[in-house]
Parts: sequence; structure tokens; C-alpha cells
Amino acid sequence: MNVGGEHYRTIWLKDDDPRIVQIIDQRELPFRFVVEDLETVDEVARAIAEMHVRGAGLIGATAGYGVYIATLEAPSNSIEAFSRSLAASTDQLLATRPTAVNLRWAVERQLAAMAEASTVEAKRSTARALAVEIADEDAEFCRRIGEHGKGIIEALSAEKAGEPVNVLTHCNAGWLAFVDYGTATAPIYAAHDAGVAVHVWVDETRPWNQGARLTAWELGQHGVPHTVIADNTGGHLMQRGKVDMVITGTDRTTFTGDVANKIGTYLKALAARDNGVPFYVALPSSTFDWTLTDGLAQIPIEERAGDEVTTARGSLGDQIVSVQLTPEGSRAANYAFDVTPARLVTGLITERGVCPASREGVLGLYPEKRAVVPAS
Amino acid sequence: MNVGGEHYRTIWLKDDDPRIVQIIDQRELPFRFVVEDLETVDEVARAIAEMHVRGAGLIGATAGYGVYIATLEAPSNSIEAFSRSLAASTDQLLATRPTAVNLRWAVERQLAAMAEASTVEAKRSTARALAVEIADEDAEFCRRIGEHGKGIIEALSAEKAGEPVNVLTHCNAGWLAFVDYGTATAPIYAAHDAGVAVHVWVDETRPWNQGARLTAWELGQHGVPHTVIADNTGGHLMQRGKVDMVITGTDRTTFTGDVANKIGTYLKALAARDNGVPFYVALPSSTFDWTLTDGLAQIPIEERAGDEVTTARGSLGDQIVSVQLTPEGSRAANYAFDVTPARLVTGLITERGVCPASREGVLGLYPEKRAVVPAS
Repeated sequence: MNVGGEHYRTIWLKDDDPRIVQIIDQRELPFRFVVEDLETVDEVARAIAEMHVRGAGLIGATAGYGVYIATLEAPSNSIEAFSRSLAASTDQLLATRPTAVNLRWAVERQLAAMAEASTVEAKRSTARALAVEIADEDAEFCRRIGEHGKGIIEALSAEKAGEPVNVLTHCNAGWLAFVDYGTATAPIYAAHDAGVAVHVWVDETRPWNQGARLTAWELGQHGVPHTVIADNTGGHLMQRGKVDMVITGTDRTTFTGDVANKIGTYLKALAARDNGVPFYVALPSSTFDWTLTDGLAQIPIEERAGDEVTTARGSLGDQIVSVQLTPEGSRAANYAFDVTPARLVTGLITERGVCPASREGVLGLYPEKRAVVPAS
Repeated sequence: MNVGGEHYRTIWLKDDDPRIVQIIDQRELPFRFVVEDLETVDEVARAIAEMHVRGAGLIGATAGYGVYIATLEAPSNSIEAFSRSLAASTDQLLATRPTAVNLRWAVERQLAAMAEASTVEAKRSTARALAVEIADEDAEFCRRIGEHGKGIIEALSAEKAGEPVNVLTHCNAGWLAFVDYGTATAPIYAAHDAGVAVHVWVDETRPWNQGARLTAWELGQHGVPHTVIADNTGGHLMQRGKVDMVITGTDRTTFTGDVANKIGTYLKALAARDNGVPFYVALPSSTFDWTLTDGLAQIPIEERAGDEVTTARGSLGDQIVSVQLTPEGSRAANYAFDVTPARLVTGLITERGVCPASREGVLGLYPEKRAVVPAS
């Protein structure tokens, strides 16, 4: 998407030296726009572990490029030495975010493809091509989500006779979490780019403020009108008719339609239901969990360190600092996700189209999964 | 309540010089505990306007003491000169927070009482006695709210066989917002002091963080176990059975049971209903609006400056600073309150007892109001 009028993805090979991977260091956003060179496996591993990059799709793409960097770093004097070095590198990459599904998926896809190539040079060129393909595929799936979701926004726009469609979103399921377009944001960008008037209510998304920092920044850079709000505000806005639809992303969705997403999503889904506001979740099919039937009972919820809650990070003059919000001695709890039950979800927007958040809805779009999912 | 083991109210006459009013400067909490002397009407007016004191009950009590200070400042050489000076002072006090109902109520109550006294000395002593009485009455009403609400917590404690009762609260309806005890916190303090095991989930309450700053501090000082959470968290906790009841305060409640309170209250009420968690609102009867029948349609919602949302205030070493959270150019909206419809409220805890959040419930406790309220 656009940054200062130029088109960017979140990750790419350096123009004049394709042995170097470039990323946007997201820790610095929205205060500084920093492009970082990754030249070694150590640097790639650190970028993932320390969240220079984050978000399901982008972690996968970075791991794909990381394997390519690993092939350049591995010695080329023998296939055996090359393979030993590569194995150590992929172990290192896999250890960075052990629960990230896309990370393992990308690494394993790279290893399977390279197994087909017999020389070091062939393996290097396979890895480079597949890294680009993984990133392109991520972007293409998000683009399709945008096309399918755009129709929903266009229909609301027609109902409102062209008045801006007010979309509320939570957290950052934007292009910064993927390679391009994002998931929740893809329909918004597609509608905006097609000339449909859209305005976005951006939940700040405490405690990490992904909304206030990242979603607001990427919408602003792309020229999409938006307003940041405290997470407490969405219910009031819906009561007053100021929200036409909600779109969020998801970290894991059961094939029965239960949605695990950033903590607070469930509260917005309740308010949407109470006020007759449609509540959509946008996701590529890689985010479906085909093994679980009950999200609330079966999806484990990560509990993170309390100091994310007791502090806030922001800019103070030229510095980025964390300030303490709470009294000494008050402890904090920090649950990272909640589960929105399928009954509160109007529809799922996927790369294959929009479907009801139900077993039959999802399997209707992905019939090849009927054979593998558990019985109800 | 307790601060460092000593009993405090939020406002009092100085022990060794009762011409001086003392308050806790709440802007400094929880980082510094600062007691401030108020010796002039200018100082009292500034303390109210600049929120050294805040909260419905405490603003009223401060205005009551402010009128007493005004009688000391007024010249005693003639009743006419005294009255002219007093009128200018009360105008100055009334201008500080023009929408605060308790401020006007306290000033008018003082003026009516002083009209009965004929000498300057008699007026001064009337004003001093009534200032103390207004504060004592506020504390006594909150104490009774605590007694009535304690029964609800005790019943839950019995159901849980003495396991801690988990109470979730939003914003600060604590003793810092009143003279003592608070409203939402009064049942919690009463139960805790009676030896009932209670644990409080404290919503941080963005954007001003009244929960993280004030509620956490006063619970900590009084020794009540508590955990600060992001406002996004309550729904998840209720889904997992970690909340036994919700208690909030209110800024205005219709006599039909619709509750205006700090933004975000409505979202917690929805989650409580969805999970079968009782949702109570604690209030003195002065907070009832006897003229309105439909809170959502009739209660105006204050919109405050967006920079409360785009920043966060906290401590950085020895300093208290505000950091910027959002990108330059992203605007923010800041609605201060929302309305929770009566259908989501389990009961109202008042100084006269607990009643359903309905016309008949409220008029059952306050039968003298039947003659003045509008027909349904």
C-alpha cells in the first residue's frame, strides 16, 4: 500500500542487491518510518523474535525469505555441509515464535521444495523463487479478500446514497500484518480505491495499541479517512447509528465459525448484535483450524506479561518511551485474545468468497475439507 | 478510607486551623500523595476547575466548603458588603464546572441556610456547620450503599463457599469521587472490612485511566486484592467464569433505570447479560434524574477533546508526562459517557436499599417522587 505516496509491501528483496531482504521495522511506527536490511539468518531471526515484523501473514513471508538467506549463508563446497548449515538455520528460525502457525508452514514448504533440487545452486534459486511466491500468494489472497468484501461496503454505500460508510475495526489486521492489503483492511482499501466513500473507526486496542499505532498509520498513509477511539467507545457509536459494519481479522477460526482474535473483539461483536450492525471477520483460509469444533472450549488463550497493561509506549519529543500508568504494587493481567462465538458473526470474508460463520458455510466454500474435519 | 494505614476523607477542615480546607490533589495520584491547603475562594475555584478534586459527591462537598471560605473572606463591617462579596464568590464557584449538578445544589443549600442567620458571625458559623453536614451526609449515604450492597457480595461468597468473590468495576466510583467509601466501591469495602474474601478486576478506563490511576490506588491503600486489566478484557473474563458480579457508579440515572456512566460501561453490561453475570449500579438518590424516561434518547453525551485519546499520561522516573500514541494527522473522537439501558441492569444499590432498575422499582424506594415524575 502507499507510504508517503510510494507503493510499499512489508517485505521485499533489495532492488540493487537481491541477497538482502528489506522490511519495515514496525517497532518504530507510527513515529519513524525505518526500512531495515536483513542480510543474515541471525538478523532475520531477531527481526521475527523482537517483532520488527509481526502478524500471521508477514511472519510466514519473513520465514520464507529467511530460508532463502540461509541458503546463501550455507557453505557451497558440499551438499552435506550445505544441508547441515541449512538445518541449523531453520531450527533457529522456528524457535523465534514457536506458536506461529505460518512460520512452520513457510519453513516446511521451503524444505519440501528444495528437496526436489539436487545442487546447491538449484536449491538457492528454488528458495529464492519460493520466498517470492509465498509473499506473492499472501498478497494475492488478501487482494481477493478485498474484492469479496468490497461488495459488502458497496451495498451499504448504495443504501446510504453515497454517504460515507462507517466501518469499525479492532487491532491491526492491515497490510502491516501481511505482505500487502491486509485482511480486515482489504475491503476498506478496495472500496476506497474504487471511489466509495469510507470512514474507519479505529479502536486503539490496548494494551499494545496496534490500532492507534499501526492501523491509524497505514490508513493515514493511504489517505483513508479515519478516527481513533478508545476501545470503550464502539458500543456508544453503534447505539447512535454511527457504525454501518464491523470488520476484524482473526488469529485462529474454527471451521465451525468461532473466532479467536485480539482481546476485546467479543465485546464489539456483542454490541453489533445488540444494535443490528453486521459483524464480519476477514481471513485467508490458512487461518482456519480444521480440527476444532468449539472455539471457546478448545482454543487456548495466551496470557502475556502484565507490564504491557501497567505501561503505555509513545513518543515524547524525539524519544520513544514507556510511561507507568498504575500504582506501585497493583498487579495486572494481560489476556491477549478472546473468542467470539459463531452466533455473533454475520459472515466470514475469505479469498474464495463470503460465507456464513458455520460448519456448512465454511465447508460450502472449502468442500475438499469435508473429508478431514471431525464430525459434529 | 485508609492511606498508608491512616484514615482519610477526600476533604476536611485543617485540625489546628479550621479556617483552612484540606484536600488530596488527585492530579498527582497514584504517583504522589499530595495534601493541598485551600485558604481562599480563588484556590477553591481553581481546585474544582482544574480537577484537583473531581467526582459528583466530592465536587458538591468542595463547593460547600468553598462557600464557608467565602464567608471568611467577605468583609464583616456591614451585612451589605458581606453579602456583595459572598455573591461574587458563589458566582465564581458556580462557573467552575457549569454542568455539575451537585455544585449548584451545594451552593444553593448554603445560601438558603445563611438567609436564616442575621449577623455576619451567625452566617459564618452556619456555613461552617452546613459544609461539614454536606460532607458528612455524602459519606453517610455512601456508607449505607455499602451496607446494602454488602449483602449481595456476602450471598455470592456463601455460594462460593468462601472463595474470593470476583467483582469487576469500571472507572472510579470510589471514595476519591465522594467524601468517603464511594458508591461502586462501598459494598466492596464493607464486605472486605467484614472479612469476606473479595477480589476486584479494575478496568483501566481509557482514555483518562481513572481505574488504573485512582481505583487501583485506593483499593491498594485499603488492602483490597485487585488486578488491573485493559478495558478489552472483561468479556473474556466473564466467558471463563472469572467474574461473579459487576458494580459501577453512574453520572445520571433516569428514574426508569437507564444508566449514563463512563464510556464503555454498556459493553460490560452486554457481556454480563450474555454470560449470566449480575450487573449492579450503585448511586445516592441525588444522582437520579426524575424528569427523564428514556436515557438513550434524552441524556446528552459530553464529547471531550481528542487529545485525551491520542496521548497517555504516566510517570517516567520522577516526572509525570504525557506521551503521544497516534500518528500525526490521525484525528480522535472522545465521547465521555454511554447509556446502559435498564434491561441490562440487574439492580440499583441506593442509600435506601436495592431495587430493580425500573420505574416501579425506583418509585417503590422513593414513593415521595410519584407525584413529580412524568407519566410513562
